[in-house]
Amino acid sequence: MSQLNMILLFLAISLSASFPLLGQEEIQDEDAFFIKKLYDRSLTDPAAHQWLEHLCKKIGGRLSGSENAVKAVDYTARVLDSIGMNSVIKQPCEVPHWVRGEKELVQVLKPDGSKTDLSALALGNSIGTGPNGIEAKVIEVKSLDEVENLGKTIIEGKIVFYNRPMDPTQIRTFHAYGGAVDQRVYGASKAAEYGAVGVLVRSMTTRTDDFPHTGVNVYKDGVKKIPAIAISTIGADRLSKMIKEGELSIFIRNNSEMLDPEISHNVIGEWTGNENPNEIILVGGHLDSWDVGEGAHDDGAGCVQAMDALRLLKVCGYTPNRTLRAVMFMNEENGLGGALAYAKASNEAKEFHLAAIESDAGGFSPRAFACDAEESVLTDRFKKLSEVFSLLEPYGLSLTNGGGGADINPLKSQKGILIGLRPDSQRYFDFHHAKNDTFEAVNQRELQLGAAAMASLIYLIDKYGL
Amino acid sequence: MSQLNMILLFLAISLSASFPLLGQEEIQDEDAFFIKKLYDRSLTDPAAHQWLEHLCKKIGGRLSGSENAVKAVDYTARVLDSIGMNSVIKQPCEVPHWVRGEKELVQVLKPDGSKTDLSALALGNSIGTGPNGIEAKVIEVKSLDEVENLGKTIIEGKIVFYNRPMDPTQIRTFHAYGGAVDQRVYGASKAAEYGAVGVLVRSMTTRTDDFPHTGVNVYKDGVKKIPAIAISTIGADRLSKMIKEGELSIFIRNNSEMLDPEISHNVIGEWTGNENPNEIILVGGHLDSWDVGEGAHDDGAGCVQAMDALRLLKVCGYTPNRTLRAVMFMNEENGLGGALAYAKASNEAKEFHLAAIESDAGGFSPRAFACDAEESVLTDRFKKLSEVFSLLEPYGLSLTNGGGGADINPLKSQKGILIGLRPDSQRYFDFHHAKNDTFEAVNQRELQLGAAAMASLIYLIDKYGL
Repeated sequence: MSQLNMILLFLAISLSASFPLLGQEEIQDEDAFFIKKLYDRSLTDPAAHQWLEHLCKKIGGRLSGSENAVKAVDYTARVLDSIGMNSVIKQPCEVPHWVRGEKELVQVLKPDGSKTDLSALALGNSIGTGPNGIEAKVIEVKSLDEVENLGKTIIEGKIVFYNRPMDPTQIRTFHAYGGAVDQRVYGASKAAEYGAVGVLVRSMTTRTDDFPHTGVNVYKDGVKKIPAIAISTIGADRLSKMIKEGELSIFIRNNSEMLDPEISHNVIGEWTGNENPNEIILVGGHLDSWDVGEGAHDDGAGCVQAMDALRLLKVCGYTPNRTLRAVMFMNEENGLGGALAYAKASNEAKEFHLAAIESDAGGFSPRAFACDAEESVLTDRFKKLSEVFSLLEPYGLSLTNGGGGADINPLKSQKGILIGLRPDSQRYFDFHHAKNDTFEAVNQRELQLGAAAMASLIYLIDKYGL
Repeated sequence: MSQLNMILLFLAISLSASFPLLGQEEIQDEDAFFIKKLYDRSLTDPAAHQWLEHLCKKIGGRLSGSENAVKAVDYTARVLDSIGMNSVIKQPCEVPHWVRGEKELVQVLKPDGSKTDLSALALGNSIGTGPNGIEAKVIEVKSLDEVENLGKTIIEGKIVFYNRPMDPTQIRTFHAYGGAVDQRVYGASKAAEYGAVGVLVRSMTTRTDDFPHTGVNVYKDGVKKIPAIAISTIGADRLSKMIKEGELSIFIRNNSEMLDPEISHNVIGEWTGNENPNEIILVGGHLDSWDVGEGAHDDGAGCVQAMDALRLLKVCGYTPNRTLRAVMFMNEENGLGGALAYAKASNEAKEFHLAAIESDAGGFSPRAFACDAEESVLTDRFKKLSEVFSLLEPYGLSLTNGGGGADINPLKSQKGILIGLRPDSQRYFDFHHAKNDTFEAVNQRELQLGAAAMASLIYLIDKYGL
């Protein structure tokens, strides 16, 4: 698109319409003006993007219990200090300490003696195979139910290969993830119940590529722990094809291990409210990430957007009525240690979170906020928020119902509202838990629009209540 | 995001809600079912993506008049044939034939004798400097008005450097483009009127990077033609900084030239309607692109989406009431030769386009359709379309007013409706008219969603009229 007709059209639009989608009668001028100020600042002074660069490039992947996680705690505490919070604290929480060890090896052993390496990553919390690895016949399945149906006779002694893809026809990719991820989370223990010696899991991604995607594996109490390894979607397709050609063995080797739990920290920056300091509006993301990649979309983006939301309000001259908190939760990826510690301390202190907003769906173009709350308050709070939400429509945002976020869910019993930022989801699983989740994969404007969206939402909730 | 709470939530959502945003009372079951079929097919059988790979990787940049443009005409004619159109024709049109020549050189000559190269691309239609290049003092301006105000005394004999950035605070990046692109389109002639010997133009992009972005420059009749060259935003910032430190000369050299016009072609695939064959619904994009990069987002994406929209309807078993046409317009980038030839022939044949839909804003996640029409019919047609549009809301689409597209605008006098696909615009100018506009920059799901969106819209218009 470049021609003169279009140019003239654009000129006309850009001169005439700052808020093209908003009916004049609905504009509350002062609010519209302030929200525009927040957006303007976010798009011209991209602090979130700069902080993300530090988090990704100077620190990198930051799994709970790792040295990088400690660095990320220190760094974000310094950032929160620098933007003028009234207090910045590191709140202790217990987290697992899992280490990947050496590069994993997954080899297909063909009857003719040839070997084919598949791109592989051990799943989080997986035990290791021991230094000699494990060699066994492989069997492909599409579900946990199929393992049950095949039973011990067929599963015992084998490596189970879970190969049900994410459903590409789901419009929101998170729904496709939800429909496939049971294989990754519960597949190992299910297979172990029937005597399997290890599992391979097709990566949770909507792309066909050669990046293996890690993510949490949860061992069931009382069931033997067996190694669990993700292979790329290209690898999964190759393996499936080879299996169709004849019986195969697989050799797997990894030396991941679970060490003793560590004490890590949530980082909490608080900006005390002027009129109702006992009502809290929280904005957060999770600071931990998987060890591969740089945790850029998941969830460095959410952390820097949350901090930047409060910075934007501050530099634009806002004085909050309620207490605003930016919270960098620790250990969302493999335990929720931080979220549970935060909620426990908050409940013990009889705090009330009027709203908790989380960004944990990638630094992509924001499209909506999704709301959740206890049933007794949901309708009322949603209605109140709807009344002012038209001010955010010019920025391409809509209000919908849906989950707030894993870290804020434990606050639901306080009967405030839980809100999740919903960016466009199409590209999220291209990068999710994989080594290509890097700073470069995040577009500056898309990231900053998310920060501005959250700042604007906080402003509206703080000013008008719920 | 990966934890168990979220997983359970997603499972619940994905099992319960195929159309989470649509009220049950509004669903027209048969239509909803067919639209889902179109989307399902698009996301599992990604023909648009495969065609785009061919267009980008086997052909590449395809400026009007070039050999690649001929190849693209032949290729898309073959594709349209292969998907079962009733007829496929190549419609002649006259196009300019501009060639870039050797790699451009832009050097800053500092008083100390040192030279700094800036990343540069001649603007489309620019004349060359001749083999010896041009050396002259440089003057930075922010607008065409500033050139007028400075006048001949200051401008004469100089190279004018236009350095007004795209406004980052515009939420739709096209508005920011519209507010800056006059420098690129008209800057050379304006500067020449005051005696300048050449112009440099800051690239039209929202990013700070080292890719120069080309695009059309239009010489005013009767004004001396001078060379016009884009420099990257990093280059523009460096040059501006150096100018602030003291007077500078610049050396520029390019040997672009405008050859004689050529006859090229629009490619038109027609699928004849069953009941109202004289009412036409057009879907199109433009087949030409700039010579750098692969013309992936601009506008290979639009072409393959348009062809795929008709393919999807066909493979899903649809029989159209009206005549459907996929049109690959030639020469949108520097002349609109194809669009004008198409409209002329259509008017002469007394055709009626009930609707013309264009995709020319990149292969990004679709967010809206924008409608335009002659004033006398706009309200009615918009209202009719609104009545069925709720069926597309579950797919994240809204209906808005705005420009249809440069290639379809000449059809406005037929009093149908002109509709532009509006994908998310944040990343468009990262790639626009630059060498990084490649196949890899297009996400398969985002591209296919656009094809499905256009197929669904055609279905609704064809079935219910306007």
